[in-house]
Amino acid sequence: AKIAVLAGDGVGREIVPEAVKVLQAIGEKYQHTFEFTSADIGGQAIDKVGVPLPQETLALAKQSDAVLLGAVGGPKWEGLEYSLRPERALLGIREALGLYANLRPAKVYPNLVDASTLKREVIEGIDILVVRELTGGIYFGKPKGIEKLPNGEERGVNTEVYTTEEIRRIGKVAFEAARKRRKKVTSVDKANVLESSELWRRVMIEVQKSYPDVELHHIYVDNAAMQLVRNPRQFDVMVCNNIFGDILSDEAAMLTGSIGMLPSASIGAKVGLFEPIHGSAPDIAGKNIANPIATIASAGMMLSYAFKLEKEAEAIEQAIVKTLDMGYRTKDIQGPDTRVVGTTEMGDAILRNLN
Amino acid sequence: AKIAVLAGDGVGREIVPEAVKVLQAIGEKYQHTFEFTSADIGGQAIDKVGVPLPQETLALAKQSDAVLLGAVGGPKWEGLEYSLRPERALLGIREALGLYANLRPAKVYPNLVDASTLKREVIEGIDILVVRELTGGIYFGKPKGIEKLPNGEERGVNTEVYTTEEIRRIGKVAFEAARKRRKKVTSVDKANVLESSELWRRVMIEVQKSYPDVELHHIYVDNAAMQLVRNPRQFDVMVCNNIFGDILSDEAAMLTGSIGMLPSASIGAKVGLFEPIHGSAPDIAGKNIANPIATIASAGMMLSYAFKLEKEAEAIEQAIVKTLDMGYRTKDIQGPDTRVVGTTEMGDAILRNLN
Ligand SMILES: CC(C)[C@H](C(=O)O)[C@@H](O)C(=O)O
Ligand SMILES: CC(C)[C@H](C(=O)O)[C@@H](O)C(=O)O
Repeated sequence: AKIAVLAGDGVGREIVPEAVKVLQAIGEKYQHTFEFTSADIGGQAIDKVGVPLPQETLALAKQSDAVLLGAVGGPKWEGLEYSLRPERALLGIREALGLYANLRPAKVYPNLVDASTLKREVIEGIDILVVRELTGGIYFGKPKGIEKLPNGEERGVNTEVYTTEEIRRIGKVAFEAARKRRKKVTSVDKANVLESSELWRRVMIEVQKSYPDVELHHIYVDNAAMQLVRNPRQFDVMVCNNIFGDILSDEAAMLTGSIGMLPSASIGAKVGLFEPIHGSAPDIAGKNIANPIATIASAGMMLSYAFKLEKEAEAIEQAIVKTLDMGYRTKDIQGPDTRVVGTTEMGDAILRNLN
Repeated sequence: AKIAVLAGDGVGREIVPEAVKVLQAIGEKYQHTFEFTSADIGGQAIDKVGVPLPQETLALAKQSDAVLLGAVGGPKWEGLEYSLRPERALLGIREALGLYANLRPAKVYPNLVDASTLKREVIEGIDILVVRELTGGIYFGKPKGIEKLPNGEERGVNTEVYTTEEIRRIGKVAFEAARKRRKKVTSVDKANVLESSELWRRVMIEVQKSYPDVELHHIYVDNAAMQLVRNPRQFDVMVCNNIFGDILSDEAAMLTGSIGMLPSASIGAKVGLFEPIHGSAPDIAGKNIANPIATIASAGMMLSYAFKLEKEAEAIEQAIVKTLDMGYRTKDIQGPDTRVVGTTEMGDAILRNLN
């Protein structure tokens, strides 16, 4: 299989190689051929060729079977116009690859429960999958832009828009995922105010008819933001539009207290994209202290979602658990009686624990 | 002063009379004449006259100096089309009265810290004021609606739109509020993706120039949802557009663990509206167990914001604190060594503690 490796900026350059190391070991152990090709994305690409998503990077991604991404962005590029910034590469690659479904698990490893700001009894055992629509809604809807008004002032516009078909396909992803989990989908909307949400809710109800074994619940987005804090264990799969998913998946991730642990998968068409949910963390970049686990777990999601290699994906998951059980920690997740190691040492430890 | 009393549905009918009782006592004690007139809103109005916001209710509100609102909605009206439901009365009255600024404090009373799902050391002492834009953005923007497509499917649309002037006036409210607090405004947006947010950010930077004594910070909405969980004490005033404010103010409220305690004020033009942030709680309605404190505290905000009666507002706040210190609790906030009382008993206790 061909894997495009887009390390990007900041800690991306340190954590991605650890995940590649783990994938290589899996390849050897289980007799798969993984072919890795690197390309530039984000600030790094801006510095070299002036745009955050070069044509050749996109061409490489399209010819690959899966993309492993690190992170993009940093203070160096914050003076640029928004339309030219590193993050725009993410929107561009999502759209170009047709990655309409973003899967973001928020679960807490037993050894790391105390890292949460929530009380142990509230957070223990949470296991939420946020299914976020990723190529529609207010992120891409038109008209959009800033226009001058006759009185010399301005007006900024964005458009939230969803078609039946866009809602149906993300709904199916959520129900399929729920089938392999606790069989409960909570659809997030604001149907009491927004017509786009009214359609969203109606289509979700339709989709559910093909999944009689899966429960469907509806919740308003403001209440969802509350309930995640009040009792996060009530949720299994949450399906959200692009902007609500952006907000709630980050809230859900932070509940765990260890965002350096959380992977993501973006799927929908031929090529899937896999990346940690955390950012480029420029403040700690280049110091060999970043936590590579989210990226290694993203490689695990790649094995499962892109290549249907469930046993191999499970091996990565088990190696992470075992490494944590042995007390290895990067700085961000250190605790009493643990052994703090650097980025590469953490990667090596997980490698040794691969079965 | 003329006060319109719109108790609404569910527990609204029980908690609003307690707040009226407290306002009457303040009137007598401090020699102010408050004249109360009641009218229907929400489901109750639908039952009587078929619409959630009758003309005469709106006329009464417009002729008053302030509006005290309970809550609207309940299962009885959930079969109705969204456009006819009780909640639409809220949107209608906000628009008709020009209530463009919604102020929602999230703070935690020392005796109630343990009600939070967050650890004591994270939540203790939080005191956030969310300033939410309330008459613009995606809630009211056009075009909106659901249209049929040529292929027989549908398309739902809403429009997020803000003008310079709308952003400027809500910005000023936030900076004015911050001046009386810890002098820090955090403006929430998604400027890395949305042009409407790009304008929002630019205008906030302009507004800050008239408030050199107040710090301005910017945060993306997804990061804000995270940071509220990670370290809520970092925030003083948060200023948000309508939908982001809807989501984040509920998240912030739930951090405290006791949403039965939290008031809100909606201001902007001649008449202000004051209401608890919680809903109509149909499951506990009619049992004399609802917590009236959020509504009594909303009456306190009315005294301060509508009538500039700061001493009187402070007296209500002190009476609430004293009553909690004496161990009085409604069911929702009960704890070890406390005395659980009903809605009216809680109102009476606060009344007795008014100085
Ligand atoms: C960087 C930004 C454009 C992006 C988004 O909003 O989608 C990020 O927040 C994410 O969730 O991947
Ligand atoms: C009921 C609903 C229309 C309303 C809103 O979204 O504004 C509510 O959630 C609120 O925050 O007052």
